[in-house]
Amino acid sequence: MKPHNTIREGDNVLLYLDNKRKYLVKIEKGKILHTHKGFIKLEDLIGCVFGSKIESSLGFPFYALNPTVRDYISKISRPTQIIYPKDMGLILILSGVGPGSRVVEAGTGSGALTGFLAFHVRPDGCVYSYEIREEFIEKAKRNLERMMLLDYVEIKNADITKGIDEKNVDAVILDMASPWLVVPHAYEALKGGGSFVSFSPTIEQVIKTVETLKEHNFVYIETFECLIRRIRVERGKTRPETRMIGHTGYITSARKVIE
Amino acid sequence: MKPHNTIREGDNVLLYLDNKRKYLVKIEKGKILHTHKGFIKLEDLIGCVFGSKIESSLGFPFYALNPTVRDYISKISRPTQIIYPKDMGLILILSGVGPGSRVVEAGTGSGALTGFLAFHVRPDGCVYSYEIREEFIEKAKRNLERMMLLDYVEIKNADITKGIDEKNVDAVILDMASPWLVVPHAYEALKGGGSFVSFSPTIEQVIKTVETLKEHNFVYIETFECLIRRIRVERGKTRPETRMIGHTGYITSARKVIE
Amino acid sequence: MKPHNTIREGDNVLLYLDNKRKYLVKIEKGKILHTHKGFIKLEDLIGCVFGSKIESSLGFPFYALNPTVRDYISKISRPTQIIYPKDMGLILILSGVGPGSRVVEAGTGSGALTGFLAFHVRPDGCVYSYEIREEFIEKAKRNLERMMLLDYVEIKNADITKGIDEKNVDAVILDMASPWLVVPHAYEALKGGGSFVSFSPTIEQVIKTVETLKEHNFVYIETFECLIRRIRVERGKTRPETRMIGHTGYITSARKVIE
Amino acid sequence: MKPHNTIREGDNVLLYLDNKRKYLVKIEKGKILHTHKGFIKLEDLIGCVFGSKIESSLGFPFYALNPTVRDYISKISRPTQIIYPKDMGLILILSGVGPGSRVVEAGTGSGALTGFLAFHVRPDGCVYSYEIREEFIEKAKRNLERMMLLDYVEIKNADITKGIDEKNVDAVILDMASPWLVVPHAYEALKGGGSFVSFSPTIEQVIKTVETLKEHNFVYIETFECLIRRIRVERGKTRPETRMIGHTGYITSARKVIE
Repeated sequence: MKPHNTIREGDNVLLYLDNKRKYLVKIEKGKILHTHKGFIKLEDLIGCVFGSKIESSLGFPFYALNPTVRDYISKISRPTQIIYPKDMGLILILSGVGPGSRVVEAGTGSGALTGFLAFHVRPDGCVYSYEIREEFIEKAKRNLERMMLLDYVEIKNADITKGIDEKNVDAVILDMASPWLVVPHAYEALKGGGSFVSFSPTIEQVIKTVETLKEHNFVYIETFECLIRRIRVERGKTRPETRMIGHTGYITSARKVIE
Repeated sequence: MKPHNTIREGDNVLLYLDNKRKYLVKIEKGKILHTHKGFIKLEDLIGCVFGSKIESSLGFPFYALNPTVRDYISKISRPTQIIYPKDMGLILILSGVGPGSRVVEAGTGSGALTGFLAFHVRPDGCVYSYEIREEFIEKAKRNLERMMLLDYVEIKNADITKGIDEKNVDAVILDMASPWLVVPHAYEALKGGGSFVSFSPTIEQVIKTVETLKEHNFVYIETFECLIRRIRVERGKTRPETRMIGHTGYITSARKVIE
Repeated sequence: MKPHNTIREGDNVLLYLDNKRKYLVKIEKGKILHTHKGFIKLEDLIGCVFGSKIESSLGFPFYALNPTVRDYISKISRPTQIIYPKDMGLILILSGVGPGSRVVEAGTGSGALTGFLAFHVRPDGCVYSYEIREEFIEKAKRNLERMMLLDYVEIKNADITKGIDEKNVDAVILDMASPWLVVPHAYEALKGGGSFVSFSPTIEQVIKTVETLKEHNFVYIETFECLIRRIRVERGKTRPETRMIGHTGYITSARKVIE
Repeated sequence: MKPHNTIREGDNVLLYLDNKRKYLVKIEKGKILHTHKGFIKLEDLIGCVFGSKIESSLGFPFYALNPTVRDYISKISRPTQIIYPKDMGLILILSGVGPGSRVVEAGTGSGALTGFLAFHVRPDGCVYSYEIREEFIEKAKRNLERMMLLDYVEIKNADITKGIDEKNVDAVILDMASPWLVVPHAYEALKGGGSFVSFSPTIEQVIKTVETLKEHNFVYIETFECLIRRIRVERGKTRPETRMIGHTGYITSARKVIE
């Protein structure tokens, strides 16, 4: 994911037109990106440095950026995906996950949260990602491969509510319908002091999960919601955007202790 | 910062009593932690696994957790510190910083944001942290040393509004009074496509910074504010907390392009 | 606006199907409401009590409610309208306007805020509403007539930035592009201790208005923003709605004093 | 509550020093207000117009404002009071209450919401306020008398969960622990199409109340929460206040229909 400075064949590039129009493309010879503002021959970018301007056939300026993990996540198609970048940042800091962490995660879904975690456990950590729905696994793998993060992930087609294979992991991170069913297994899988983090859209999920955590020797239990507002900044016209996302989900975190 | 599983002399431990009372201590022979709920001989923890319960002299249960980067940040005394963990998570994801990133940061202050970034660029990235006020530097170094992150940081007693020594860095991250003065230097220091992120409490700082970014070949300019609410979860009494932090600062991000 | 209990010809009725589909109609003989769920002959409602159920031609249940001032406001077409009910409630309480108040207001626009104020100054107060754009005045009058509130309003086709005719009024309430230009006139028009309230979408408008208020013997100057979140309540699925309005405008209030 | 323009003996006056220091006093001969900024002889205000400046014995300027209903509410001591002005404005607009409305309300508590409603139903409406706890009733009466609103209120020392005496009322407005127990009685008391509004701090109260409303022929059921942020406006330093109230309560509204 860390690009060299010069664009090469096979690189992923984010072609930026404006804040609403950004195209994630793979540089291949002969490939053309068609947009409402004209087309771009992607091979023309080979040898340019990242950040370079390229004009479309209609003369509009596009910029060739190296995609960040956030750019990838925004572009991953997400039938099941409801975690936003704002939530991922909070999950990361609440879980304490960083380079070298061994993390169990479920469900994989399209791999957005998986990729985010994988990016941050590099180079010697690992994400064990559980997904019961077989149809998601191929898609998630393709997404992770595109992000060059598949090496840091082990996707498991298994039901995490039945058990977790790993032991002594640093964190268990859940984005699934019934996180409370995983609490006893998370306790078994975590090292002493390890982190449990769960993301849930409804308050009833949160209540059940918190109650189950209290029954299973977890402490430092906290629940948050995170609201993010985009500000339109322009001298004389500065104001928050009219519309915002009012809710994605609640984030609950806890730490395993030993009685 | 990645603990072994067993507590050893010299380790940092977060002694957790409840969500409001958590004590960050260094395990030393003969040292005693005094609290309103009795005292604890820290050497008694040596050889215990992290997560273990220890009773105070008055019989209250404390838990010996391995501190996460968030726990350290919360405990660092902060005369100048106004960035909250919620903002740090967002700064990380907007900047694209991760393992291996080379980051320029200013000002160092007490080292909270520095430590957070250092934690996430490990093991082969680096944070170059600028601080003009000499009196902060020793304190920041002590805090980073305590977090075992000083190896990933180069603190520089210099005025970043006068220039940045580094070239080809992945990100420039600012928490200082006049970020717009740094924009031209950030442009010079960043690699093509590199990220600029600035945290500012007032809207006038944001307006000046965004205007300066537009004048200096930055694109993908966005400004956010992040609100976090703590939820009190208890069956029959579930509700958001009465009081919350209503504002810390605005976060502006942008990417360098080459005309 | 206070209905008798029985629906009569000429009454306004809110035909409620569900929270998203509500139809504001005037009961007339021979008139038919066509909806995607079938049609309703409005004269069939004559003689029914308010709150009655009526089935559409396709058998769907509609309820005949007496429209509240909020229902009218939501249905008034609003090319210029950006004040939401949440803001109107706050404007009312900050201004101290109530039955008997004499209020100057600008601009009239489609008459939504005018109608709200008129409703609350009844029966012996008055709203003097200034509107410079002639094309809005007829529309506003029609809306106020429909709400049966035109008797409590005097609409003036005049530029309030040039002056206010009234003296000794209880409040001046502004929803217009340049409220700071009205501050000196508001001072002249208000009685001692009278309230100034202004609604503005951008922060620059707020800054200019607050500065002008400070220069013109206003005190008790406050600025607020009000966020409202809709909660979806359903056992097992309770959560805030995904989308919300993130910003409508800032509300600034102040009181005239005499040096 | 509508003052004449000149201050007379017996008038209530809000002595304003700054946004944090405001004193609600009754003008009496011989009475003195003592503050940290010196004292003020209240009789000196007799004959001054509202809005006048008066200097304290130490030379600090105070301003004699006519208190608005909001000023009274903020000053009413409130052991049980958790509704904020922001919520009152929303309750008013959701309920459709205005001049002439007949409203049932519970519990009275210290009379803050009662007074707010009474202010807005003047001059020919009425608030029937139920309070089971006898010890609150005298206090509420004194507060309402001070606001000159007692004539518009009938306080009843009765348990509203046992029944409501009134019939054909326009609205039932509840701020009490078990609003769902009142739903069947509210249905009996309300006219067709009448409004039910309930304010509750916890989400479990909301869920029970909404379920009960659905079982009792109420429609147009909505739940909101309202967040208000205070903005500090000062050129070059403009920003939301650091601290805010994160939660007071949820507001649920509904309309009675007839099957």
